[in-house]
Amino acid sequence: MSDVASSWSALTAHLSEIRVLQGAAGVLAWDQQTCLPKEGAAFRGEQVALMSKLLHERGTDAGIEGWLSALEAGDLDAVQAAGVRNMRRDYDRQVRVPKDLVVALSKASSDGFGAWLEAKNNDDYGAFAPHLETLVDLSRQKARAIDPDGHPYDTLLQAFDPAATTEDLRVLFARLREGLVELIDAVRTVPAMPNVDTAFPVDAQMAMHAEVAAALGYDFDRGRIDSAEHPFTIGLCTDDVRITTHLYETNLIGGLGGTVHEAGHALYEQGLPHELKNTGIAAAASIGLHESQSRFWENYIGRSRPFFAWFHSVLERHFPGSGVSAEDLYRASNRVSPGLIRVTADEVTYNLHIIVRFELEVALMEGTLSVADLPAAWNDRYREYLGIDPPDDAQGVLQDVHWSGGSFGYFPSYTLGNLYAASLGATLEAELDGIWDQVAAGDFGQILGWLRDRIHRHGHMMDAPDRMREVVGDRDSVEDLLSYLWGRHGRLHGVSRPGR
Amino acid sequence: MSDVASSWSALTAHLSEIRVLQGAAGVLAWDQQTCLPKEGAAFRGEQVALMSKLLHERGTDAGIEGWLSALEAGDLDAVQAAGVRNMRRDYDRQVRVPKDLVVALSKASSDGFGAWLEAKNNDDYGAFAPHLETLVDLSRQKARAIDPDGHPYDTLLQAFDPAATTEDLRVLFARLREGLVELIDAVRTVPAMPNVDTAFPVDAQMAMHAEVAAALGYDFDRGRIDSAEHPFTIGLCTDDVRITTHLYETNLIGGLGGTVHEAGHALYEQGLPHELKNTGIAAAASIGLHESQSRFWENYIGRSRPFFAWFHSVLERHFPGSGVSAEDLYRASNRVSPGLIRVTADEVTYNLHIIVRFELEVALMEGTLSVADLPAAWNDRYREYLGIDPPDDAQGVLQDVHWSGGSFGYFPSYTLGNLYAASLGATLEAELDGIWDQVAAGDFGQILGWLRDRIHRHGHMMDAPDRMREVVGDRDSVEDLLSYLWGRHGRLHGVSRPGR
Repeated sequence: MSDVASSWSALTAHLSEIRVLQGAAGVLAWDQQTCLPKEGAAFRGEQVALMSKLLHERGTDAGIEGWLSALEAGDLDAVQAAGVRNMRRDYDRQVRVPKDLVVALSKASSDGFGAWLEAKNNDDYGAFAPHLETLVDLSRQKARAIDPDGHPYDTLLQAFDPAATTEDLRVLFARLREGLVELIDAVRTVPAMPNVDTAFPVDAQMAMHAEVAAALGYDFDRGRIDSAEHPFTIGLCTDDVRITTHLYETNLIGGLGGTVHEAGHALYEQGLPHELKNTGIAAAASIGLHESQSRFWENYIGRSRPFFAWFHSVLERHFPGSGVSAEDLYRASNRVSPGLIRVTADEVTYNLHIIVRFELEVALMEGTLSVADLPAAWNDRYREYLGIDPPDDAQGVLQDVHWSGGSFGYFPSYTLGNLYAASLGATLEAELDGIWDQVAAGDFGQILGWLRDRIHRHGHMMDAPDRMREVVGDRDSVEDLLSYLWGRHGRLHGVSRPGR
Repeated sequence: MSDVASSWSALTAHLSEIRVLQGAAGVLAWDQQTCLPKEGAAFRGEQVALMSKLLHERGTDAGIEGWLSALEAGDLDAVQAAGVRNMRRDYDRQVRVPKDLVVALSKASSDGFGAWLEAKNNDDYGAFAPHLETLVDLSRQKARAIDPDGHPYDTLLQAFDPAATTEDLRVLFARLREGLVELIDAVRTVPAMPNVDTAFPVDAQMAMHAEVAAALGYDFDRGRIDSAEHPFTIGLCTDDVRITTHLYETNLIGGLGGTVHEAGHALYEQGLPHELKNTGIAAAASIGLHESQSRFWENYIGRSRPFFAWFHSVLERHFPGSGVSAEDLYRASNRVSPGLIRVTADEVTYNLHIIVRFELEVALMEGTLSVADLPAAWNDRYREYLGIDPPDDAQGVLQDVHWSGGSFGYFPSYTLGNLYAASLGATLEAELDGIWDQVAAGDFGQILGWLRDRIHRHGHMMDAPDRMREVVGDRDSVEDLLSYLWGRHGRLHGVSRPGR
């Protein structure tokens, strides 16, 4: 065997064990949020910690450097080149962080989570601040360890979106913010959309949600749907991709949106190139691209009038005489109203919540904002961008779990997802005929086929921005998103985009 | 630290990792039988194989011999002595089997299972016979590797019931067989008990089953109940012990018996000494003793007239106007009727099914019976002991999964469990007052407390026969079982035990 062939063979065998261990760890994580008995939490913590340890040992195995170096010096085919690029990144990110720092971060995250939960319950930012100081400090150390010369926020961000840069996001997000504020100002002056708060027994809702997911193309032979407090999707492998949802008795639309969102993630996972499973390529190209798939289905398709025309017929089958019309559902699902809380925000204001967090994270990592000044900076931005005044820190700077676990750089992927989804939607509409008639008929096959062909089947051959360029050309995603949002919400609210 | 202290500390730390890995493997096994999507089976197979490999590596770690030797030469307290005895057995059983043989057995089991399934479906013993030849041969090799001088069946048996011997079982089982045949002959001449085949929707049954399990003392904060094709209980740790059951629309009693049986296993697991979790002691003393707990609840308590007096009130709450009386339930649950199939057998004839298998297994391992002659030997014994003639091998020698996986020596634990349960029941009745009134009132606390005190909390400090002797003295378990069975079934069928 050539050096390339033998190194590739050794590396993929090693990756196979990592993949299998990750699958097992995934089952533990899924079970923890869906099935675990109350008193089983401590033992599950031990199991999860052991799996992390075993994965870290394998991810930093001394053999990897040799295989990667040999491959990097050799003549690689396209799959090998992409796989080596991905594995090099993963390996460097793991091996460059000193073990002491890994341990310190793990402890700070664990302590931070508990402290955050209590601080949020007591609206006591001061109790969380020292933990956040530590987490910011350790995260900056980690970024420096991985790339001493890079921008620390670039380094953290790229754990989730490998080819994204702080500077690119700054430019995109500034333009988006401006456009969103304009749209929100316009709809603020007109009456809000009606609400739908009819009660539907949750037990009876589940079968309907499963039917919706199946109609979108989610394959129940390779997955299942369960209830969870915080909905999530987990892909153990393309053949075992599980979705969860939270059903609400009097918030049909909220629950439905969650299911469609998670089904979107799951369709991506089920569509990854299974045959490349040990190459580091059968994975999402980025968290942002993953989020584009969930947002595309949740918003672009799932909040459209044709979607509700179809969904209404499903609802009537499950709840005859529901007393809710398709138009009620459509209008209620498109309320726009600036609020305090990210996770319950509508699709327009949602991005402003993200932009606030992005700007603050960057400032924390650059050292231009102190942890002590964070609440005031938060409140200022909410006032400026959303026009609302957080009454306390519990509903303000303490609302999200992310920072308590040292997860800096994750938030932007939510809005990146919306930007990608908008350009995908515009391209799909330009390339395919009659998709809205298909949606109204509950026929999602052509749309899914298009996403499978353009996005899913490629896995992580290309980074997300490159893949997107292949699919949408040089479309302006900010303009696509604003144009889509004005198209739906402007029309619905009877307002027009200024100057168009 | 003394040599003992440092070796003990190292050994228990090592055991802790094994325990945590076993817990994770347990979650995978549970999920496989309750939640796994159809297409997820292949990946799960990879995960299970990896966990087995990791467990085998740790179970045969070179450090263990040193720690055990140091401890065996030292001055040990009671917990250490028992822990070292248990770990020595486990270690020797693992380390003495050559790796090639482990691999060959694993392959033969996997191939054997597939071949058995097909052979059973096609009623084609000939197609399974070569696989069984291999499994018998490899199992004998394994027994020889573990203990070159021992009886091969002793060695296999002791994987499940450490202190049991073939010779002891031969004597016990021969006496039991004789007594059972006498009882079956007596009830054969009187009309069978009535059947209960009222339909109860399975979805609505689950809440009732959960209530029954909770009433027995099963703690749902440390467990859960789910549906599974083949009911089982799995104890990941004392704080996460899960039961499963199979609900039948028109076989209320069959489903209920399964739940009570599994709850019995689970009560043992939830009652093990958690504080000794890394010592090799917080485990069942044997599979036979485990089975005694499930059988005690399923049969001794769960087929009694007072139990059905209470259960009937539960049934009426869940299914008002059920149309079934407590007496109907009691009588139907005590039908005695020799049949072909072990898993659906009544509690009297059940033991004969086991004795047939025990005698044949011993002969296969001793080399006095060939695989080719096995079906004829099977049919001869069914004719002799149960008075019935298997019409084909599918319902005869091919009915059970055990041998297809090379699991020889497991069957006796079912009847050992019934023997232990009978002596426990007789002792409990002698020591406690008014238990049947408590059962009729749905109050199982004193009974569970007694089992916790006498059996559960001791874990595997003593081997099962020694623990039993502590609890029941030198009672004759065969006589206890026969006396219990005659007491219930003789009375119910209006026949008396000859010569008494």
